[in-house]
Amino acid sequence: MGILKFYWLTACAGLVSFAAVAQSRNSVSYVDPMIGSEGEGNVFVGASCPFGMVKPGPDVSRASNSGHTPDMATPLYGFSQVHVSGTGGGPKYGNILVMPFAGEFGEINQTSPRASETASAGYYSTVLSKYGITAELTTTARAAYHRYTYTNTGRRALRIDAGEFLGERPVPDSREAQQFVGSEIEVLSATEIKGYSRIRGGWNNGPAYTVYFYAVLDKPVSSFATYKGKRLQEGVKVQSDEGEKTGALLYFDGADVKTVQVKIGISFVSCLKAKAHLEKEIAGSTFDQVLQQAQQSWEVLLKRIQLDASTPADQLKMFYTALYHTMLMPADRTGDNPGWTSDQPYYDDFYAIWDTFRSSNPLITLLSPSREVSIVNALLDIYRREGYMPDARSGNSNGRTQGGSNAEVLIADAYVKGLKGINYNLALEAMLKDATIPPGGNEEKEGRGGLTDYNTLGYVSNQFVRAGNRTLEYAYNDYCLAIVAKGIKRKGEYQRFIQQSNNWKNLWRPVTDHGATGFIMPKDAAGRWIDSIPCSESNGRMSFVHYSPLAQDWPICVCWWCGFFYEASSWEYSLYVPHDVASLIQYAGGPAAFRNRLDTLFEKEYYNVGNEPSFLTPNLYHWIGRPDLSSTRIRQIIAKHYNSSYAGIPGNDDSGAMSSWLAFHMLGLFPNAGQSYYLINAPFVKQSTLHQENGKDFTITAKNFSAANTFIKAAWLNGKPLNQSWLEHEEIVKGGELVLEMDSKPGDWGTKVLPPSMSLDPLLN
Amino acid sequence: MGILKFYWLTACAGLVSFAAVAQSRNSVSYVDPMIGSEGEGNVFVGASCPFGMVKPGPDVSRASNSGHTPDMATPLYGFSQVHVSGTGGGPKYGNILVMPFAGEFGEINQTSPRASETASAGYYSTVLSKYGITAELTTTARAAYHRYTYTNTGRRALRIDAGEFLGERPVPDSREAQQFVGSEIEVLSATEIKGYSRIRGGWNNGPAYTVYFYAVLDKPVSSFATYKGKRLQEGVKVQSDEGEKTGALLYFDGADVKTVQVKIGISFVSCLKAKAHLEKEIAGSTFDQVLQQAQQSWEVLLKRIQLDASTPADQLKMFYTALYHTMLMPADRTGDNPGWTSDQPYYDDFYAIWDTFRSSNPLITLLSPSREVSIVNALLDIYRREGYMPDARSGNSNGRTQGGSNAEVLIADAYVKGLKGINYNLALEAMLKDATIPPGGNEEKEGRGGLTDYNTLGYVSNQFVRAGNRTLEYAYNDYCLAIVAKGIKRKGEYQRFIQQSNNWKNLWRPVTDHGATGFIMPKDAAGRWIDSIPCSESNGRMSFVHYSPLAQDWPICVCWWCGFFYEASSWEYSLYVPHDVASLIQYAGGPAAFRNRLDTLFEKEYYNVGNEPSFLTPNLYHWIGRPDLSSTRIRQIIAKHYNSSYAGIPGNDDSGAMSSWLAFHMLGLFPNAGQSYYLINAPFVKQSTLHQENGKDFTITAKNFSAANTFIKAAWLNGKPLNQSWLEHEEIVKGGELVLEMDSKPGDWGTKVLPPSMSLDPLLN
Repeated sequence: MGILKFYWLTACAGLVSFAAVAQSRNSVSYVDPMIGSEGEGNVFVGASCPFGMVKPGPDVSRASNSGHTPDMATPLYGFSQVHVSGTGGGPKYGNILVMPFAGEFGEINQTSPRASETASAGYYSTVLSKYGITAELTTTARAAYHRYTYTNTGRRALRIDAGEFLGERPVPDSREAQQFVGSEIEVLSATEIKGYSRIRGGWNNGPAYTVYFYAVLDKPVSSFATYKGKRLQEGVKVQSDEGEKTGALLYFDGADVKTVQVKIGISFVSCLKAKAHLEKEIAGSTFDQVLQQAQQSWEVLLKRIQLDASTPADQLKMFYTALYHTMLMPADRTGDNPGWTSDQPYYDDFYAIWDTFRSSNPLITLLSPSREVSIVNALLDIYRREGYMPDARSGNSNGRTQGGSNAEVLIADAYVKGLKGINYNLALEAMLKDATIPPGGNEEKEGRGGLTDYNTLGYVSNQFVRAGNRTLEYAYNDYCLAIVAKGIKRKGEYQRFIQQSNNWKNLWRPVTDHGATGFIMPKDAAGRWIDSIPCSESNGRMSFVHYSPLAQDWPICVCWWCGFFYEASSWEYSLYVPHDVASLIQYAGGPAAFRNRLDTLFEKEYYNVGNEPSFLTPNLYHWIGRPDLSSTRIRQIIAKHYNSSYAGIPGNDDSGAMSSWLAFHMLGLFPNAGQSYYLINAPFVKQSTLHQENGKDFTITAKNFSAANTFIKAAWLNGKPLNQSWLEHEEIVKGGELVLEMDSKPGDWGTKVLPPSMSLDPLLN
Repeated sequence: MGILKFYWLTACAGLVSFAAVAQSRNSVSYVDPMIGSEGEGNVFVGASCPFGMVKPGPDVSRASNSGHTPDMATPLYGFSQVHVSGTGGGPKYGNILVMPFAGEFGEINQTSPRASETASAGYYSTVLSKYGITAELTTTARAAYHRYTYTNTGRRALRIDAGEFLGERPVPDSREAQQFVGSEIEVLSATEIKGYSRIRGGWNNGPAYTVYFYAVLDKPVSSFATYKGKRLQEGVKVQSDEGEKTGALLYFDGADVKTVQVKIGISFVSCLKAKAHLEKEIAGSTFDQVLQQAQQSWEVLLKRIQLDASTPADQLKMFYTALYHTMLMPADRTGDNPGWTSDQPYYDDFYAIWDTFRSSNPLITLLSPSREVSIVNALLDIYRREGYMPDARSGNSNGRTQGGSNAEVLIADAYVKGLKGINYNLALEAMLKDATIPPGGNEEKEGRGGLTDYNTLGYVSNQFVRAGNRTLEYAYNDYCLAIVAKGIKRKGEYQRFIQQSNNWKNLWRPVTDHGATGFIMPKDAAGRWIDSIPCSESNGRMSFVHYSPLAQDWPICVCWWCGFFYEASSWEYSLYVPHDVASLIQYAGGPAAFRNRLDTLFEKEYYNVGNEPSFLTPNLYHWIGRPDLSSTRIRQIIAKHYNSSYAGIPGNDDSGAMSSWLAFHMLGLFPNAGQSYYLINAPFVKQSTLHQENGKDFTITAKNFSAANTFIKAAWLNGKPLNQSWLEHEEIVKGGELVLEMDSKPGDWGTKVLPPSMSLDPLLN
């Protein structure tokens, strides 16, 4: 009892021989971490291992979610050890900063523009033009490796700052701002420095978390100073925590000191634990060895999907970078949890499940089902210890929900895909908690806000914010709960929640807009439709705006989180009924009307490629027997919005959400998360092979593949004709081959048998 | 911004000259920490400063709330640094244990019976008979001082254990059990050891808290071993946190080592902070100096109430020990808060406000209004940073509510007593949060459970646990909120909540029991009275029991926390309408019926002296014009249940609640917390003088004081006749004298004018 067992997968373990890779180049060589670093991608560009806890990278702007900005002239202020990737809203982390410098000795803050920067999986490098220093970073899962090469003569220096972090704002307790709590630094010897940074707030408005570090230098310092606030003290070894920012300036005077290498162990538990991580993972290795290990740890996972040798380098780069982005988060922190001991895995930085449940988690399930099992088990352990599963979590704290309680989708997805090693009885209990117990005073933290409405009225009324997408998401969450309940023979819960999964219908209002009829619209608690919503106050008068299906009540009216829908219009959200597209089509006036509606959505650009609510939408043509139209839309979207440039991701990558959407579609598959099948589309590659953890391969081959042949004419699964436009997950697990015969025009493949819908399934009624 | 300011009152600062004390003996000399150490008092018997963060004391039983048990034969297993006093339910703390021993070297666990023990304010000593070691403890606010005197020859030893804590149970995550999370130890030099203990759970089922320590020995160790789990390792300096219990065995071999002294700084922030506490408070001082400082810090506060020189020593002991017990908690942790930085004070261990609001906090307001201001401001800062004020809090986490949200009473009490330096607008906001926003998934943590019922039905129905006392307490909490709202001109809130304060009437059922009519009884959400409550299940059948005003549905039926009332019957709780006793009397059938009812309550022993719900009840005779009967009851209760023996407290002292009840009644006053007056009763002492912080004295003189004269015949306030049986707080603040003429039989004093009641106050209607 109480004894911590170490389950964390030694992500950067270097167990793989590169020789085993069949492709002409290693898959990892196609990864370009800079894709998505321009525009709105917000991706992390530094060094990382898969699901690694430590992510050392450049910090250029404290307002940047990744720390990075593409503008090379903007001065870089250091390299901190913990980052997230692709997020929006207020930043998180950016802790324990290292900054090399030459000159400006005795100053606390140094910055420099970058002359150039380079990144690959597990590696980042930049030249600090002001100081003539080349900075290189690599990492293990829990320890960072910094190598600084100086070109100046005379004194060289390094700052280790325990007070820096991203997202500080001048007003204390600002919403989404990280806030300083405390920091400490101690120079233990000429080569060892330890300390911590304690920060609260950030995007999920969480309580304080602490990032401890233990740094070891490869050269002894000649002299040093430490500081607290703005008071710099020569030779003072210790700055204890008085609620002020602390750090150390380290000086190297010998003429032979051209390179200073710093190894930094990180822990969320203690400095000694950080030291233990350093000693276990990195102490005996050179920079190049650590880098090679990091690359190998990526290669192990990336090569599980092998693309045909004919695939253009550009597409290989997009594809493998997409896989890479998908596996940056959540962070595996098993054994490094300051909250409790457990025999279960521990993951943090679900940021957010609302983003990742749709395609990231399903992609992880294909690449590494054991990893997905660990992730789900971590969610269940969080429920067991803290009371709710997260919909988002960071800094060891749940928060914050955007709409539904989407851990339900992860659990259902695991269940219907047959993942073993999950206690589904416990999982049902956790889901029932979400579905029945209101989360209380802070409805952004976890659980389901507005639940009292939902469970009495059958919808969330306009007295709660985000009533529209909450109702839609809860309905689907309820479907997911019901499916698991059914599976484990909990008939009472099944009946209740399969019924509740129809609740989206309670907000379906038969209004017509731009040729489409029927939209999810706001309703008050008395059951009356609401025609306008509060917008703003001026000179003591409230102004209201007419609420239409195209209204974007955020962020112009009310606050970002206070509208009827979260970050999308009713045009987008009204199509979010993933469990019962057949009913949705019927409600929308039948297949013809539905097709027109989808066409309008895409052609008038009511569809937002850069956000998650519409992730499934391009595939909805499948349900009117027109998978060809799905394929066409997908090709249009990718051609227009994705590419291999630094600006090649069309919105916040959101822990790899945007990237995983791309990766699936390049393969010609797309999951309907929480359900057991993949929709089949025209693949972007001639052949792809999934080398599964279970040892079985599944290959997708596009016969007659060419630039002109973008339609599927016919399909065979293991040699037998497959007339349906979807593929069951179990077929992949068993291993085999899906052959898609391509043509330049659509045929009748996929037009007769439509993909599953709850209302048409005799087993679900 | 973000810079921590140190507001914590240097509690053990030793600024006072003993010569300034007028009494023949110092007040502190009358303190006997052993009062309440037998029976159910559960008081802490070790060394403490007023409101001190560190409380080193003996640990004999891991199931004991204070760590201590009176049975000397039960082996003591060490002296840990953090304790609470007087609590019930699952224990909390008991961290960082030191155990001296001689023999049994190489073993991890040593225990010894005690041959004797001695305690005084700031001091504890015991003889460990098995080893022939005398252990002595004293303390500052944040650093403990241990002195061990060995009588053996040969090797002497000491264990420092970072894995020990109170209240562990074999089943992980047991309700109210503390659970181990992690620990660390590091032998820094022959005289320095540091580490931490991280624990979660305990009575308030809180998340992990961490107790860091930094220990300095006055003799170098000859050799040492450290351990992790059961693995003992000679000479290994570091045991880092792997989720196992760690500690160190320290050996002293020189023949001259007769005494080993250990100074231990404690912090909830970091080891270096613990070191800073040690260096600031204790590093340069001898044991005797620290002890003297501790005593002086108590003397400063205790001597603020001076009793007549004729008072028997026994009563002086009871009185000053009661004041002492009242000031053990909450713990002043200003500047040592791991959760946030602030310019506001920080207190922890509100354990619970439900216990202390009735008399402990009002007593603190008299002894040190500046301290009460700090305490209230700490509550408001907790609200501002975490969302709710606590009703209970420990280990840096709110939890758990027994009934109401009684911080409202503290705030109203501060407001009506004119305490300055509190932002009452912020306070109203915090109270409105309690009153309007349900706390959610964990209704035991904070806020008001069952609030959805209360705010729609006007009472908490039987669908929520503890519906009875919740309804009663919320009604009074609402009164308190209303009074503050009125004061700061928030008329809307005032109107709503003054009205809601009548909600107790909604559960008033006109049933008759043992001659009394009208009781608070359970009702369902449809408004139907409930005649029976679920008791237990056997062989698949539920059994119900008839619910009567004497039913004690806890803990025999349902669970301790699941009954209609918390820890009391309807006979007791139905009298809890502190804001409107006049209406209560009317509902109960008028003055004569009410007197009979009170007589029945006391004579049939339906009244429980050992619990807080009836704290005000003996005074209720005042409202039927019979303060003489109140005085008689109070004398009976004290004579029967309180004394100066080790078993002299009749129930869990609950952070000094029982003690403060006694202290007030010995003075002849009792507060109706949240309201501005004190009820006047026959005092137990001939004269008492309150030396107030504002420099003004207030004296209560009992003229014709004698054992036979237990009734007040007449009263004069500053020379003017005072015919009412209560005294306004502002009269005390102004300074002056209350003279009570005593007689052997009651007269007509206090019979004509009755104390305030909301329904009779023209300003409140």
